[in-house]
This record gives sequence, structure tokens and C-alpha cells, in this order.
Amino acid sequence: KPPDETDNANYFCEYAFLYHQMDMLEDEPRTGAYFNAITWNPESFKDKVVLDVGAGTCILSMFAAKAGAKEVFAVEATDMAVRSRKLVQAQGLSHIIKVLQGTVETVTLPSMVDVIISEWMGYFLLRESMLDSVLIARDRFLKPGGALFPSHATLFLAPVGSAKACREKQQTFDGERQHFDNFNCTMMQYYGTDFSCMQEEFLEEQRKYYLQTGMFVNLAPKQLAGSGSPVLEIDLSTITLQDLKDSAKPLRCCMRISRDSQLEGFTGYFNVTFRGSTQNPVKEVVELTTAPTTKTATHWGQQLFGFFPPLQAKNEDVLECQLFIKRQKKNHRLLQLDSAFELCRESNGKRFVCQKREDTWYVD
Amino acid sequence: KPPDETDNANYFCEYAFLYHQMDMLEDEPRTGAYFNAITWNPESFKDKVVLDVGAGTCILSMFAAKAGAKEVFAVEATDMAVRSRKLVQAQGLSHIIKVLQGTVETVTLPSMVDVIISEWMGYFLLRESMLDSVLIARDRFLKPGGALFPSHATLFLAPVGSAKACREKQQTFDGERQHFDNFNCTMMQYYGTDFSCMQEEFLEEQRKYYLQTGMFVNLAPKQLAGSGSPVLEIDLSTITLQDLKDSAKPLRCCMRISRDSQLEGFTGYFNVTFRGSTQNPVKEVVELTTAPTTKTATHWGQQLFGFFPPLQAKNEDVLECQLFIKRQKKNHRLLQLDSAFELCRESNGKRFVCQKREDTWYVD
Ligand SMILES: Nc1ncnc2c1ncn2[C@@H]1O[C@H](CSCC[C@H](N)C(=O)O)[C@@H](O)[C@H]1O
Ligand SMILES: Nc1ncnc2c1ncn2[C@@H]1O[C@H](CSCC[C@H](N)C(=O)O)[C@@H](O)[C@H]1O
Repeated sequence: KPPDETDNANYFCEYAFLYHQMDMLEDEPRTGAYFNAITWNPESFKDKVVLDVGAGTCILSMFAAKAGAKEVFAVEATDMAVRSRKLVQAQGLSHIIKVLQGTVETVTLPSMVDVIISEWMGYFLLRESMLDSVLIARDRFLKPGGALFPSHATLFLAPVGSAKACREKQQTFDGERQHFDNFNCTMMQYYGTDFSCMQEEFLEEQRKYYLQTGMFVNLAPKQLAGSGSPVLEIDLSTITLQDLKDSAKPLRCCMRISRDSQLEGFTGYFNVTFRGSTQNPVKEVVELTTAPTTKTATHWGQQLFGFFPPLQAKNEDVLECQLFIKRQKKNHRLLQLDSAFELCRESNGKRFVCQKREDTWYVD
Repeated sequence: KPPDETDNANYFCEYAFLYHQMDMLEDEPRTGAYFNAITWNPESFKDKVVLDVGAGTCILSMFAAKAGAKEVFAVEATDMAVRSRKLVQAQGLSHIIKVLQGTVETVTLPSMVDVIISEWMGYFLLRESMLDSVLIARDRFLKPGGALFPSHATLFLAPVGSAKACREKQQTFDGERQHFDNFNCTMMQYYGTDFSCMQEEFLEEQRKYYLQTGMFVNLAPKQLAGSGSPVLEIDLSTITLQDLKDSAKPLRCCMRISRDSQLEGFTGYFNVTFRGSTQNPVKEVVELTTAPTTKTATHWGQQLFGFFPPLQAKNEDVLECQLFIKRQKKNHRLLQLDSAFELCRESNGKRFVCQKREDTWYVD
């Protein structure tokens, strides 16, 4: 199935711009992690046939060539392929790297490959749904026992104490209530039309936009009210497309609160690791993390989801989360999170739930 | 031809949000002009059958009902139709206004209509290409001699003296040159990859984005270096779809400069007027303008296009413009302007061209 027109218009077209590819290239923790994972492990690449899924500028393909790959198929859907072909040529690597413009779902390769490299991660790990394409590539082209770079991915949730971003959203949303009242007054006064029957729907629309949409943030570690806890662990060599899609069972995680605090929300971030395959593990394991840091943040930042109103948590409370990660109906590359949270406390040796919430959030 | 998926994703989906409809409703010069044009001319609406093309919240339909229309067909493509049906009901107007969800290109009406009302104007008048739909509606449904509200539209160009927005774009663009150099250094140093072969294409991309894209501005009249001059005049009752589309001959206009000044760019804005039809002219002609003003601006503002570098103009110079307004290939609702400018001066009774430029701009 080639990408449809809408997918082209909404998703791929962005990647055809150099400034966007450069944004990613300049993300040093990101590009550096791939560089290290590949060039520190030449034995995983020496004389190997490699597939780069979504090659963009072919930067990863060039790393693989540098690490000794015999042949690299660089598959890129957008016109960036035309440019990266030029770039590859300018580095004198055309004899190794074959740039193929097309989607990995529809391309044909002359042979199976030993290694798949790909940078497919989106906000909240799964936004963009590009992991689908990597799994399809794996099933179509990876030799048995071949390696995926990265090989593993973990999505973490962590409780957030104080977050100005949440308070600002709440204020903006409150402002929109007032806005509607003013609007309705004007419409009555100027045009004799009463819009009050639309108030609820307007507020719902605004709530969705301001309160139920994940925010891009770069959190400092001290803003967390407890450490992060894995909610989803992916082994890229075994997970199936079906596992990835809306599942019947919720994901679960328990976040331990480490100080008395207002919880203004929770955050999602991820790690990916490069371990090679079971048959051919790498010598040097490399990890790329998007966790809150005081050092250089990645371009993914973290996603922040607000609790409105905040939860009142105490040291040693446990925030339990059940989460469904779904794709949005109107755009399968965006996410919908259906969640249930319980804030649990122990008192006199008895564990009880002191607050509960059920929320839907969107990663747009 | 029903709207395709991409059009739905890129164009219509915005209009399904109440906040967007409210933005338009709260544009007092806009909504007020339609209100006046309709309710000050009840003889044009009394017992008439009306079609509202792109009804949105049905505000114009309700004005028409108020003005005495017998029946109003309110055609709206998006789900806003569901809401406006409720709104119409809440005003007790369901017996007059029939909300039909669908595009005016595909809808069927039980009868021809006496009047078409529509608010179809986009940035630079023609962005969004919704006028196409109004003309199709006219040809499908308007009785001979029937009226269009508005009936006429004029696009003006005016020379702009000093504009901070232009200087800022130039600065940002210059910053991007530096950015590329830094980027390339980093890529060489960290990853041994030389991106210089992409510099030209990167700068072209950035030039298009920063220097060749029309800017949304609200200009003050004193920023103009001369008065506006009409470049395109449309009589909605006679213009054909074919006239509207890319034409072989350029549009032309002459802008008289009224003071010595640097011309940092030119601006485009429009008027529409409500005259009724030749057979049934209105009693009270109403005009809506988006010209630079010290009063309340409309939500269209003006579009500003920069000259890089500025032109050096003198009082009484004439800025001559030849303009092709085309649709963008990738999205027919966006515009491409191919232009040729000549700055003409008279000296010792002789007229000569002191500066020339040819530019392409985009209205995105
Ligand atoms: N199914 C698919 N087939 C081919 N290319 C795809 C794809 N899905 C996404 N892409 C491409 O994958 C790229 C992801 S961004 C990563 C680019 C590059 N590998 C780097 O690390 O810098 C984009 O250029 C996008 O156009
Ligand atoms: N071809 C078409 N058929 C039906 N509706 C259309 C259309 N093209 C645009 N529209 C709708 O036209 C509206 C234009 S905005 C104007 C809304 C309203 N008449 C008002 O004046 O406030 C949008 O709601 C859009 O969805």
C-alpha cells in the first residue's frame, strides 16, 4: 500500500525540506548516538548488506558505509532522496550506498539484508507510526538472525510536580470561557443571534485543544516528583504489527512518588538501545534517551500531559496508570491515549486509593 | 467533483472548528458589512429563495431570513452543518433555513434561487480558491437576473515604504546563511560528512520561505508610499471559471509614488461591494474593505511582499506592475504570483525606467 495523498500532504511533505532534516541532524544526542552505535561496532557492519529505512539525507547510510558495510540500500519516500543521492556522491560513497526513492512498503530490493538501520521515533515514541514501516521492512527484507539498529525501545512515564506549562494552559482555557460569553453578548447585541446553544461544544473543543493535548516540553529532572517507570518495552526483532496496533489489554505502570507534591501532570519520554541481534550482539551497547536532563535535550523533548486539577501526592505514594495507546481515527500517525490513574497510599499498613481519574489525551 | 481527501485534510477540516468560525464572526467589519448589505436591503430578500454558499454557522442565512427571505438553502461542506442546524433551530428559523451538508459542487437543490450569498474571500482575495465554488453555484442554481452578494470584488496593490516585517525577514534569512555554515562545520567535525553541496538548495528553500512568501500584516495607511491601485476587478455575475484560472495575459497596474522613499515592498488587499444584480440593484450599496486602516482591521489584514533589496523611489515616480496570479501546483487553493515591476521616473520631460525586478511570491 503506497502512502495515500493525504499522508503525502500531511506527513511526508515536511521531510522533503532540508531545514527539517538539518533540525534532526543537529540534534547531537540523537545523531551522535546513531554514529556511536554504528561506528563503534564495525564488526556488525563489516561486509554486511544494510537497509536504511527512511534515509532522509542518508546520514545513517554513510555511517554504515564508514563502518565497513558492503552495500547499503537507502530507502527514502520524499524528494530528499534526490538530494541525498548528490550528497552520497559528493562523499565518494555511490559505489556502496544505493539511494532508492519510494516507500519501504513498496520498494523492491535485489537481495535480503543483514542489518536494518532506521530513525523512526516520534514524539511519545510512537507518534508518526513510522515503526510500522520498520516492521514491514523487517518482515520483507531482513535475513533470519539479522540485526535492527536500534534493537529495543522503551516508553517511560514519570510524575510531574510543578509545571508552568500546565498552569498556563489552564489559564488560557479559563480565558476561553470568558471569551465565549463576550462573543455571545456581541452576537446578541449586534446581530440578534443567540449562540448559547454552542457554548458546550465550544468549551469541549477548547478543552481538547488546551487541556487534552500533549505539550512539547524540555523538563528539568527536578520537576519530576518521582522517577520514570517503563510502560511499554519493545523488542524490535519480535514485536508484530498487530501487537503495535490498538490492543485489548491496557499497558500498565506504577510510578513511585518521592516527595510530597502537587502532581500537575505526567510526562512521557523514551529510550532506544542498540544491542544488535541475539545471534550477533554488538560489542558496545549504545543508548539514546529523551529523558528530562540538565544536559543537551533532544529535539523530541518530552510530552507533558496535565492533570486538571492537580493531584495531591505524598512521599511514597504510588501513581498507578493503565494506558491504551491508540491511533487517532482521522490520522493514523497521531495518537490518542485513554488512561486511568489511581493515586495509592499506605496508611497503618493498609493500602488505599486516594484519588482516581480517567482521561483521554491526544498526541497531535 | 467532490473534494478529495487531501482537500478535506488541509482545507475543510479547519472550518469544522467553532473557534475558527467565531474568529470570522467576531470580525466586525466583515460580519457587519454582510449584515448591513442584507438587512438594509430587504427588498432584495423579501419572499426570495436564497442560497448561502459555505454557510458555516449559517450567520448569513439568518441575516437573509431576518431580511424576509422565503427559503434559504444553507450549504456547508463540514460538520459545522450539524451545529448550525441546531443554531438555526434555536433561533426558530428552521422553517425558512434548510441546512444541507455537502459541497455546493455536488449538492442538489429542489429549485433555482433568486439570490446567492457567500463569504468566499481569502488572503489576497483569491487564496483558498473558494470563488470557484461560488461561480459553480451561480451556474448551477442562480435564476437569470438573480443577484450575488457580494456582486463585485477588487484586488488592489499599493507600494509600501517602511516595513519592519520585511527587514526582519531579511535578517532571519541572513541568519540562515550563517546557520548553514555552522551546521556544515559541525557535520564535518563530528561525523566527517561534507554537506556543502546542499548549501545552494538550502538557501533557496529558506529564501522561498522567508523572502518569497507573503506576510500577514496590518499596515497603517501612513506606511504606504502611494495610494493603492486596482489590479483585478471582478464582476461576479459575468466572470467565468476559465477567466479565474491561470490566464495568458498578465494583470497590470500603475502605482503612483507620493513621497521620496525606500520601497521595502508592496501590499495586496481587496474590497467587495454589494450592488445586487443589474436587473435588481440594491437600494443601499455596502462595501467591505481590507485596506490598511487606523480603525478596526479585518481578520484578512493585508498581504505584504518584500523587495529584497528595497527600491529607491522618488515622489511622482510610477511603480508599474505586471502580475500573473497562478494556483500552486501542489495545492490549488494556494497562490503563486509571478511579477515584473518597473519603477518609472520622468526627468526633463522624458520617462525612463530606473529600476526593474522580476520576482515570484507565494501566498501560502
Ligand atoms: N514508509 C517509509 N518509506 C520510506 N521513507 C519513509 C517512510 N516513512 C518515513 N520515511 C522517511 O523517513 C525519514 C525519517 S527522519 C530520519 C532521517 C534520517 N534517517 C536521519 O536519521 O537523519 C523521513 O525522511 C521520511 O520521509
Ligand atoms: N465548495 C464548498 N461547498 C460547501 N461549503 C464550502 C465549500 N467551500 C468552502 N465551504 C465552506 O465555506 C465556509 C467559508 S467561511 C464563511 C462562513 C460563514 N458563511 C460566515 O460568513 O461566517 C467554510 O465553513 C467552509 O467549510
